[in-house]
Amino acid sequence: MTTALQTPQRRSRSKLQDASLVNGPMLLLRSIRGFSSNRSMLWLATVPLALFGLGIFNLSAHAADLPELNAAFLANNLWLLIATILVIFMNAGFAMVEAGMCRSKNAVNILAKNLFVFALAVTSYWFIGYSLMYGGSVADGWLYFGGLFFDPTVTADMVTDAGLVPTVDFLFQSAFAGTAATIVSGLVAERVKFGEFVVFAVVLTAFIYPIAGSWKWNGGWLDSLGFVDFAGSSIVHSVGAWAGLVGAMLLGPRIGKYSDGKPQAMPGHNMAIATLGALVLWIGWYGFNPGSQLAMDQWVPYVAVTTTLAAAAGAIGATIVSTLTSGKPDLTMIINGILAGLVSITAGCGDMTLAGAWFAGLVGGIIVVFSVAALDAAEIDDPVGAFSVHGVCGVWGTVVIGLWGTAVQGDGAGMGLFNGGGITLLLVQALGAAAYAIWTLVTCWIAWSVIGGLFGGIRVSEEEETQGLDIGEHGMEAYPDFASAK
Amino acid sequence: MTTALQTPQRRSRSKLQDASLVNGPMLLLRSIRGFSSNRSMLWLATVPLALFGLGIFNLSAHAADLPELNAAFLANNLWLLIATILVIFMNAGFAMVEAGMCRSKNAVNILAKNLFVFALAVTSYWFIGYSLMYGGSVADGWLYFGGLFFDPTVTADMVTDAGLVPTVDFLFQSAFAGTAATIVSGLVAERVKFGEFVVFAVVLTAFIYPIAGSWKWNGGWLDSLGFVDFAGSSIVHSVGAWAGLVGAMLLGPRIGKYSDGKPQAMPGHNMAIATLGALVLWIGWYGFNPGSQLAMDQWVPYVAVTTTLAAAAGAIGATIVSTLTSGKPDLTMIINGILAGLVSITAGCGDMTLAGAWFAGLVGGIIVVFSVAALDAAEIDDPVGAFSVHGVCGVWGTVVIGLWGTAVQGDGAGMGLFNGGGITLLLVQALGAAAYAIWTLVTCWIAWSVIGGLFGGIRVSEEEETQGLDIGEHGMEAYPDFASAK
Amino acid sequence: MTTALQTPQRRSRSKLQDASLVNGPMLLLRSIRGFSSNRSMLWLATVPLALFGLGIFNLSAHAADLPELNAAFLANNLWLLIATILVIFMNAGFAMVEAGMCRSKNAVNILAKNLFVFALAVTSYWFIGYSLMYGGSVADGWLYFGGLFFDPTVTADMVTDAGLVPTVDFLFQSAFAGTAATIVSGLVAERVKFGEFVVFAVVLTAFIYPIAGSWKWNGGWLDSLGFVDFAGSSIVHSVGAWAGLVGAMLLGPRIGKYSDGKPQAMPGHNMAIATLGALVLWIGWYGFNPGSQLAMDQWVPYVAVTTTLAAAAGAIGATIVSTLTSGKPDLTMIINGILAGLVSITAGCGDMTLAGAWFAGLVGGIIVVFSVAALDAAEIDDPVGAFSVHGVCGVWGTVVIGLWGTAVQGDGAGMGLFNGGGITLLLVQALGAAAYAIWTLVTCWIAWSVIGGLFGGIRVSEEEETQGLDIGEHGMEAYPDFASAK
Repeated sequence: MTTALQTPQRRSRSKLQDASLVNGPMLLLRSIRGFSSNRSMLWLATVPLALFGLGIFNLSAHAADLPELNAAFLANNLWLLIATILVIFMNAGFAMVEAGMCRSKNAVNILAKNLFVFALAVTSYWFIGYSLMYGGSVADGWLYFGGLFFDPTVTADMVTDAGLVPTVDFLFQSAFAGTAATIVSGLVAERVKFGEFVVFAVVLTAFIYPIAGSWKWNGGWLDSLGFVDFAGSSIVHSVGAWAGLVGAMLLGPRIGKYSDGKPQAMPGHNMAIATLGALVLWIGWYGFNPGSQLAMDQWVPYVAVTTTLAAAAGAIGATIVSTLTSGKPDLTMIINGILAGLVSITAGCGDMTLAGAWFAGLVGGIIVVFSVAALDAAEIDDPVGAFSVHGVCGVWGTVVIGLWGTAVQGDGAGMGLFNGGGITLLLVQALGAAAYAIWTLVTCWIAWSVIGGLFGGIRVSEEEETQGLDIGEHGMEAYPDFASAK
Repeated sequence: MTTALQTPQRRSRSKLQDASLVNGPMLLLRSIRGFSSNRSMLWLATVPLALFGLGIFNLSAHAADLPELNAAFLANNLWLLIATILVIFMNAGFAMVEAGMCRSKNAVNILAKNLFVFALAVTSYWFIGYSLMYGGSVADGWLYFGGLFFDPTVTADMVTDAGLVPTVDFLFQSAFAGTAATIVSGLVAERVKFGEFVVFAVVLTAFIYPIAGSWKWNGGWLDSLGFVDFAGSSIVHSVGAWAGLVGAMLLGPRIGKYSDGKPQAMPGHNMAIATLGALVLWIGWYGFNPGSQLAMDQWVPYVAVTTTLAAAAGAIGATIVSTLTSGKPDLTMIINGILAGLVSITAGCGDMTLAGAWFAGLVGGIIVVFSVAALDAAEIDDPVGAFSVHGVCGVWGTVVIGLWGTAVQGDGAGMGLFNGGGITLLLVQALGAAAYAIWTLVTCWIAWSVIGGLFGGIRVSEEEETQGLDIGEHGMEAYPDFASAK
Repeated sequence: MTTALQTPQRRSRSKLQDASLVNGPMLLLRSIRGFSSNRSMLWLATVPLALFGLGIFNLSAHAADLPELNAAFLANNLWLLIATILVIFMNAGFAMVEAGMCRSKNAVNILAKNLFVFALAVTSYWFIGYSLMYGGSVADGWLYFGGLFFDPTVTADMVTDAGLVPTVDFLFQSAFAGTAATIVSGLVAERVKFGEFVVFAVVLTAFIYPIAGSWKWNGGWLDSLGFVDFAGSSIVHSVGAWAGLVGAMLLGPRIGKYSDGKPQAMPGHNMAIATLGALVLWIGWYGFNPGSQLAMDQWVPYVAVTTTLAAAAGAIGATIVSTLTSGKPDLTMIINGILAGLVSITAGCGDMTLAGAWFAGLVGGIIVVFSVAALDAAEIDDPVGAFSVHGVCGVWGTVVIGLWGTAVQGDGAGMGLFNGGGITLLLVQALGAAAYAIWTLVTCWIAWSVIGGLFGGIRVSEEEETQGLDIGEHGMEAYPDFASAK
């Protein structure tokens, strides 16, 4: 059949058989030349080499005979899997919020960081992070270890006791590790080198975050003191924020941000995706918080409600205060208010009345407006407000449990000062928040400094920053079809 | 260790300790000045004050001893939680569809409305809306009330009977309330004042919507008549659409929309996010419709299939008809066709054969094309087609049950005229649709008018509208890095 | 009450009652004129006519008495429904990745294709596709048929045996069919006619894909040989990719793509939505792969972990190799690396150790970089890299099971060469991959040719292509408010 599908001239261009054979080797040759031009990438390349030969041909005893799967086992593992998927979805939320709130000339860089960091976080958490966080005790509540590479064996006991299978727990926890790393990305945006940032993210998710997390979530010393952090206001959000704060301070502000002694507006380039990101994060938080119940029971929806009310109140607080201070409701403040509300309830979502959750979020939303202004006054350049949201509200969310936390779930934990629990919990919460700050500030200062020393600094050149990191770091533009406003 | 991380000059700018202390009080001073410039915001500020002191320190008897959680209890509550998350995700869908279909100069405003309105809807529904919708009878099937603030107590009966815990039911229902409010946003887009709109949204979700919903879903007078509205074609979608229609008619059309006696094209500025929004809404509808089964059973996937087929048929109907009428398949019509199909099956998704669902959606998709043209002919300016989708198809979806509904689930309800059910159901469905129209038109006319009277009108100035609401209402742009086409 | 809501002049424009009555008939008249200008659309219009009268008034015996729903039945069906929703969400991912990676002048066209094709896929799969894929045997393992229109009857056995209800299985499978069709869209982007493409998609999802799928997933001849394809590396991804490859080769490259004998960069217009799409696809894959367990059990999270590790490794492989070859980490390569990793584990996600999955993904991520270059060297124009991701990695993902697959789930299937399984499985996997290639290439060559013959070619005119398909095919622009870069 003769059809008029295309001209013969066009079809004759198709010559897969010869060209591709030549092309492959040429690409390999060019790879070797490219090697020397990007040392941090080379460093990363050793990771898969180090992994090679490990585990591929190893079949663990996964296929043990198990008892019949009971209703609670099925519900617990199904819910945790779904919660995990929601937390992983938060990567999309962070990518959209952070990219949308930065300038278009750095959008590719931010998007690439967020995508790639999650890939690295999962890999390094699989390699060692999970083991450091949830392995056996090595140093009496301060350090844990359970061997390299996570082993996903399911035992009969897990089924009988309706426990979580190790795979779903690992995946849930690795998504949390990825979240901590992603928060850093916002603080160092628009000026950090791509390769150096991703090396830092590996160090954070492989070592710094897991060790910190074990102190509470593996029954370490903070847990022994009665410290409450249900889903990680301190453990995840403040650790990410402190890690990023060190980076932001070492990097210094973006060129032109604080000229003439006052902060200059550098408005985000795409409010549509920033708003989308906020809503995706809101959705993802339903995995983050209710998922941290680590089982399906009558409290899971309760935690979802405290989370929702705090998010709503955070939006209300930030919107009203930013309207009162600046005259108009700023969309970035509504977004940050929602996120502030969510972070503010993350520690206490299982230990608050509904009204307590609403007010925790409201205060978080108010705090974030002043915190953003305070950081600017201090000339610490946090392009997307990540420290205010995750750091300041992370601390607030931890401390508020000491004020009006209540032992909702009947386990006696989390009675705050105003609910007859005395001052002790408040002090423990403050101690925990401080411990995470100190640990993260010290280790991350070392990590950023070592990485900077090894690779010739962590900040891009002035020329590259002015032109935009998309060209300098990635050789491409995010929106090449559109004319620039200037 | 000396690293080349940054120049000393950059680091010296960091002076958090002094500047932030000065900055806080200055912001507070500016707040008070900002107070008087936005009266509707001030009005809103009284809400948290009214709430203050209520409930924070109150620990309800949540931690009752409960029997072992059975399989049906776990599945029902887990499914409803997931369905709720999906419905909340619809906020992202609405935000993207509405923003994408409007002009870029109003994008921030639409995004801000959608974000903020959900926060307000949840709060006001928690405060009183849920109580008015699902409280005890006050006036014989017409009005209900169950006290202020929702009380989330779980009882042993709920577990034994595999019922929903109150928290998940509340959250599911509050997401529905938020949906009704969001639909309004589309109809009044590009010309309504931000503060006045959010006050209206509070009134709608606190009073107008809950009272209307109780007539059917709390066993009120419409339920007694045998009215069928499985997931809210009338109760949610048409109520939102009628509420918005009143707003759109009171506002009048956008400047220049109907010059020279014909509708002028004002094309949406971002078809990528509009399409994304349509797909997010499609996904979210799997919470909206199958979630309305209010349990996990063999019918839940059935409802998901009727929903899917109606969406698909709506797209097909709208695409074919719009191609035939305008010569080319218009993407906005494919989007509205999908949404029309979904709204058209929302009332009948549990009471239709699969073919019946497909044809209900197909007709909805066809209707929406003509309805959009009819509204333009009537010079009622509905920038995103929200009335055609949610209002006209909401009524169609309600009435079609009276035509070819079938009692699929074997409960005897919902047999339509063509399936041997007689004319009664058709008349009841029409009565219900009319009742929701009348109630909403009257109450919303009053609400919009009072709000307009209190705050000096609901429409922005001509100057502000011409310049764009993003500058006028929010003092910012959605895409500041990009050059405008004109 | 007199309010200042609007001027009387504005209100007087509202004249719904007269104008709309005139408008409806005029639209119908214009429809008939529009008829002849778009023959493929006319062709599609016969589909609903053919369906008309079928099934609306038919009530199948859905409401059978069923035994009490047991825990496994509830968990299985709930999980599959959620997995289905996730797979349907992949439509949003594909739409964003494909649109973002193409030029803005063709964005509406790509978005419209992705939206509309899913609507058609579901409809044609409901009409006949599901029956051809999962009906009774007609020709001894090669062809199946179960009547027109899918029948969703639930029997007591399904409940007792904790089986899937037909509705959830149908919806899950129809989402897979939609995925296959969507992959085609990327390969033929920026030059195929809209109407001709959608007719092809109907043929693919109604006939070509279901017949191919039955060979394995309905226990056909490939299944009898021991062929392993857990979630469809070959069956879904490679079939979609081969179908698109035929289209891309018949169409020829885009104008200007291979001038001067080398590929010219035609960068994607929106990296933000492309990145979002990649993350949505990642999320959606948690339905695609773990959902293919077709039950909720201890292996479902295991499959989620292999999927995650492969995605992460794919990103790492592609990023390192593309950095080494081009000097900088290209965001489109990170995106394609993730997708390559995901496709590479899709066949083996239930039959790999965790390390095996990571390395399968790593190799996939490396392959995709070279494959993209090879296709360009062969001057086969694949605008978004869909053949490299879904075709090449689809084959790789199928074959790798023959190398280092392991019978993780204890069912004896899937032991690869390096795990003591001998060479047989490797040969069977290669045979299966080849069978899907041959079947799809032959049938799709016929289908594209017939469609091209019937409708005057499948490629738009040079003028239309240069101007952009959005104007030519849809009469609209994706971003009308923004100035073009050139």
